[in-house]
Amino acid sequence: MHEFELIKNYFQKLSKKSPSALNLNDDVFFDKKNKLVVSVDTYTEGNHFIDFKKPDLVIKKVIRSSISDLVCKGVKPKYYFISGSGNKKNFSKSNLSKISKSLNQEQNKYKISLNGGDTVFSNKLSFTITSIGFANDIVYRNKAKINDDIYVSGNLGDSYFGLLVLKNKFKLDHRLKKYFTNQYFMPDIQLKLVDQIKKFANTSIDISDGLLADLDKMINVQKLSYKIYLKDIPVSNNLKKVFDLKNLAKIDYISNGDDYQVLFTASKNKRRIIKKIASNFRVKLTKIGSTHSISKKSSIVDAKNNKISLKNKGYFHKF
Amino acid sequence: MHEFELIKNYFQKLSKKSPSALNLNDDVFFDKKNKLVVSVDTYTEGNHFIDFKKPDLVIKKVIRSSISDLVCKGVKPKYYFISGSGNKKNFSKSNLSKISKSLNQEQNKYKISLNGGDTVFSNKLSFTITSIGFANDIVYRNKAKINDDIYVSGNLGDSYFGLLVLKNKFKLDHRLKKYFTNQYFMPDIQLKLVDQIKKFANTSIDISDGLLADLDKMINVQKLSYKIYLKDIPVSNNLKKVFDLKNLAKIDYISNGDDYQVLFTASKNKRRIIKKIASNFRVKLTKIGSTHSISKKSSIVDAKNNKISLKNKGYFHKF
Repeated sequence: MHEFELIKNYFQKLSKKSPSALNLNDDVFFDKKNKLVVSVDTYTEGNHFIDFKKPDLVIKKVIRSSISDLVCKGVKPKYYFISGSGNKKNFSKSNLSKISKSLNQEQNKYKISLNGGDTVFSNKLSFTITSIGFANDIVYRNKAKINDDIYVSGNLGDSYFGLLVLKNKFKLDHRLKKYFTNQYFMPDIQLKLVDQIKKFANTSIDISDGLLADLDKMINVQKLSYKIYLKDIPVSNNLKKVFDLKNLAKIDYISNGDDYQVLFTASKNKRRIIKKIASNFRVKLTKIGSTHSISKKSSIVDAKNNKISLKNKGYFHKF
Repeated sequence: MHEFELIKNYFQKLSKKSPSALNLNDDVFFDKKNKLVVSVDTYTEGNHFIDFKKPDLVIKKVIRSSISDLVCKGVKPKYYFISGSGNKKNFSKSNLSKISKSLNQEQNKYKISLNGGDTVFSNKLSFTITSIGFANDIVYRNKAKINDDIYVSGNLGDSYFGLLVLKNKFKLDHRLKKYFTNQYFMPDIQLKLVDQIKKFANTSIDISDGLLADLDKMINVQKLSYKIYLKDIPVSNNLKKVFDLKNLAKIDYISNGDDYQVLFTASKNKRRIIKKIASNFRVKLTKIGSTHSISKKSSIVDAKNNKISLKNKGYFHKF
């Protein structure tokens, strides 16, 4: 059962009693009356992160993944709580000191602070991160309009390619290896956008499961479809280089998740302000497609406007 | 390493940057400016709960344990988030439906609502519960005064005895067996006290690790000791009966944790108001000892005022 089906079937009704809250069909909880925004997520070894050989990097990945949920909604993360489950080896003095150092770096980078949490014994390593911010309003899911432009921030695919490199699926020179694995562990969260996104986005989500999977989730209760242009999906020069070097098809590497970029839609009349903000704040914002009436089927098309079929739309956390 | 030593050594410095926050030496985080109170705790199978044969009861136990952290500080829990890690069997349709039903009952009983969370795969079952409430002020730890009375709500020991019954350490008749196991799974949180406790308590904590362990934690950074009278520690009539039946020593059964009663100190001039509130709100509040200058050693004494030595002061979550 997919995580969101499970939540929907068994738990959604339990949240009906708080009219101020977003229902469970969103990545964050928003209590408008108290201006409170909360994200709670659990990350497990072998699932959300490959292993714990680099605790200093893994901890950065899970913290960034958590605050990304708030940032994509236009909410500045203020503090976080961390609950670690693991064994003695996971939480050795050496690892704890690395984790502590990394958290300190993340706190300085993203202006957040640790405010609680605990550690328990488990033979399976996981972290649950609770991130909290305050906002008068947020950008919701499922608020796209018909004929909206679809945008994405930054570049896609680097993090997934980093995972493949870590799994030894590709051999690369030292520089490229380091570049991609860093992108895997330390995706750059678009904090620059946090106060800007409400100015132009109708709806938003962060890309954790994969471009198309998250695009589906962003508009899944709306009567809308999407059309995405493969050629417009932004990738880094390093990833382009590797596509050429290894003769790889772009389509197989841009919708596999862990990007933590912001996916959003905006009305066409926002094109000018989006360009301006992108330039002023030095953040890459790329138009990659548009939303349409549900009468058209959702599609991703190649340069010749031919539909491309995908084996896998992205990553789902399955039981 | 004890959980609190671990937190202290590696993570306390990370929370220094938020002057409004309680430091990590408390069970809840309090953001006074935003009036926000947060508790985050992880509960694992075989550690915080015995097993998952009764998912409907286990889920009640973990929810109550979480909201107890807020209630003992005088904070009404408003909503909660639940992150479950487990395997397919743990989250079978039948179990999910039982969990959902139990959560609904708890929501009605304690006026809280589920506002998010997720589920991930793990071969070790655990739940991380984030509980949130709002308050202008809270009752802190480590604010006891010298010569304070020490009080406890409700009765102690029932829950621990329930655990022993579940572990087949004692054979009891059906009625007693049911009584104690219910106390283990469904400790009664003193929500009645939530708006009252600030009127009389100088400092408070909930008893999760054990009376003496939590008493130590409640005053551990103060230059104070305590004297507790064993005969005054309140136990249920059922537990008294079992002590007689099985010829058990009270001292071995009243400081083993999982009580989720409120432990607090109050100035002597509050005795009258405490009696009045206990009577008006029908909640048992028992004076069990007092705080003293650190020049006296902390002690628990028997009816003849002789010091009793304990093998074990309570339960510590160890790695």
